[in-house]
Amino acid sequence: MGVLKKQIAVLAGDGIGPEVCREAIKVLEAIGERFGHAFTFNHQLMGACAIEASGTPLPEHTLEACLEADAILMGAIGDPKYDNDPTAKVRPEQGLLRLRKSLGLFANIRPVTAYQVLLQHSPLKNDRIEGADMLFFRELTGGIYFGEKGRNADGSAYDHCTYSREEISRIAHLAFQSAEGRRHKLTLVDKANVLETSRLWREVVKEIAPAYPSVVVEYLFVDNAAMQLILNPRQFDVILTENMFGDILSDEASVIAGSLGLLPSASVGVHTALFEPIHGSYPQAAGKGIANPIATILSAAMLLEHFALKQEAELVREAVQHALDNKILTPELNSKAPYTTEQVGSFIACYVKEGA
Amino acid sequence: MGVLKKQIAVLAGDGIGPEVCREAIKVLEAIGERFGHAFTFNHQLMGACAIEASGTPLPEHTLEACLEADAILMGAIGDPKYDNDPTAKVRPEQGLLRLRKSLGLFANIRPVTAYQVLLQHSPLKNDRIEGADMLFFRELTGGIYFGEKGRNADGSAYDHCTYSREEISRIAHLAFQSAEGRRHKLTLVDKANVLETSRLWREVVKEIAPAYPSVVVEYLFVDNAAMQLILNPRQFDVILTENMFGDILSDEASVIAGSLGLLPSASVGVHTALFEPIHGSYPQAAGKGIANPIATILSAAMLLEHFALKQEAELVREAVQHALDNKILTPELNSKAPYTTEQVGSFIACYVKEGA
Ligand SMILES: [Mg+2]
Ligand SMILES: [Mg+2]
Repeated sequence: MGVLKKQIAVLAGDGIGPEVCREAIKVLEAIGERFGHAFTFNHQLMGACAIEASGTPLPEHTLEACLEADAILMGAIGDPKYDNDPTAKVRPEQGLLRLRKSLGLFANIRPVTAYQVLLQHSPLKNDRIEGADMLFFRELTGGIYFGEKGRNADGSAYDHCTYSREEISRIAHLAFQSAEGRRHKLTLVDKANVLETSRLWREVVKEIAPAYPSVVVEYLFVDNAAMQLILNPRQFDVILTENMFGDILSDEASVIAGSLGLLPSASVGVHTALFEPIHGSYPQAAGKGIANPIATILSAAMLLEHFALKQEAELVREAVQHALDNKILTPELNSKAPYTTEQVGSFIACYVKEGA
Repeated sequence: MGVLKKQIAVLAGDGIGPEVCREAIKVLEAIGERFGHAFTFNHQLMGACAIEASGTPLPEHTLEACLEADAILMGAIGDPKYDNDPTAKVRPEQGLLRLRKSLGLFANIRPVTAYQVLLQHSPLKNDRIEGADMLFFRELTGGIYFGEKGRNADGSAYDHCTYSREEISRIAHLAFQSAEGRRHKLTLVDKANVLETSRLWREVVKEIAPAYPSVVVEYLFVDNAAMQLILNPRQFDVILTENMFGDILSDEASVIAGSLGLLPSASVGVHTALFEPIHGSYPQAAGKGIANPIATILSAAMLLEHFALKQEAELVREAVQHALDNKILTPELNSKAPYTTEQVGSFIACYVKEGA
């Protein structure tokens, strides 16, 4: 693979977002330096910071920059002052929902890996979590989060959930293809004993399954899935589910790995792809140098893979493993001799540039 | 409290339902004998067994018997042959949904207790789960499970979620009252940053809260709640939530206690109240004498409390604790020297009749 020129839109966002993005960019620059790629970074506002600056969580200018970019790196968005105000008309999350919709980011992909060094930090007993390695495919632009919503004249509220066959089949194909390259198991999570949209998910997945004869398909109700993730997380390989179930279950699964600060994600779609850590904006930790940058750095590794830079992505993962092995970690994973956000990022960037 | 005459409708249901109900009835009869109460039991069909017998999961006759009874004791319903057939028109679960609606059972109440003797069976590390003691109030007759559902002409599917102020406030009052008698904390779980129905839940709970000044109210998004239940289950006292979130989260919470076989539930409402274990019908275990009857026996204890028989309910719980302490337990909790369903029930009934 020759030298690449790529433009990356950066939406650092709120809270600890800017700090963790800074370290991921440092690592991407180290990759660029070592391999001779030219990455340029176009910083834009989204979220609470954008509301403060311009009154809207997703300014036109930001959306345009994202559409022009080859990929998007995001930090985190959100501020508690909007969460607890049910009357707030403008919310940081609206920006993210609109961005997903505008960019056609229909699939959110999240690996959950039980790193050996973190087993002690998992709330699960080690023999339950050890070896767990699953990959979520969460539908991201349909379902109840994007449905019609409002109030009726009698004061009641409503939210409508809708799914089309096309919305289901395009992400189902991605999930099946991924399962073919993994352990050949796909679990569809739904509530087909009650919901009509879930029954459509099952129908479409059953229609598609014969095209992937090496993949074994299992069906699990969402309440049972919430239990099975804790009881026996090793049973899962690829998990496919709709938007809200994926929101709940992928968050649940993430904590069993022992640290949210280590888990990356990709959102892929029609026009482009976006990479971000799964953790939130933790405003209470902002500016203290205690935020773990590894999830964002591993998101940058997924971004490199999206550019087909496999060797580069592997080197970033190797550098992260090197930091884990040497306990170059922020306080939540190394309370006795903690490193700062900046130190962890520099250690990983340094390994990328020069090797161990 | 003097001698009582009470009629109890029994819906033993499918799979292991009849076996575990038999033991709970044995315990209730022991209570009747010891305290001189006259309980009569009216057995009726519901679920897959009712579909087989009459083509419908909730026959009129069963519904009438429930409406006439002073309380309802249920086993479990469901059969896998209906679960995996998306085209099945008649399903066991429809019977339960219709029963809840017909009886006005709007609140499902589930205690989740981390019994000391079961800590080793919990998937969570003992220091996480030890001391956890929470009580779920799940709304049971509204939301997306009961909304309009169907297919559009373009082949897409839809499910509508609606909540009225009245549906929210009646269960919120029950939850606040319960929190007043416990540790004075109520957590509302919703998705108010995205869903309009969730914003209505927050509004109504905020309006009601001042009437219960001793109760501290917290608000948690459902995806965060799915994480917090595993990360720190001790933080919860009373949890209030809508129907589907409650379905998912109360099932998730139940496995952290170490055994589904120990957890009872009550569904209370306008006309009557129904008591049932939270576990399913496990058809694969039916007839083998390995089903744990304790969850159904503890459901019978909640039923006694509903009749204001506090001393009697306490005695049943004491007898269960005695069985736990002496390891008179079915195979999933005592693999080395297991007791049968019948033996566990008889041991508890015997303690109730005669004391230790
Ligand atoms: Mg989430
Ligand atoms: Mg359930």
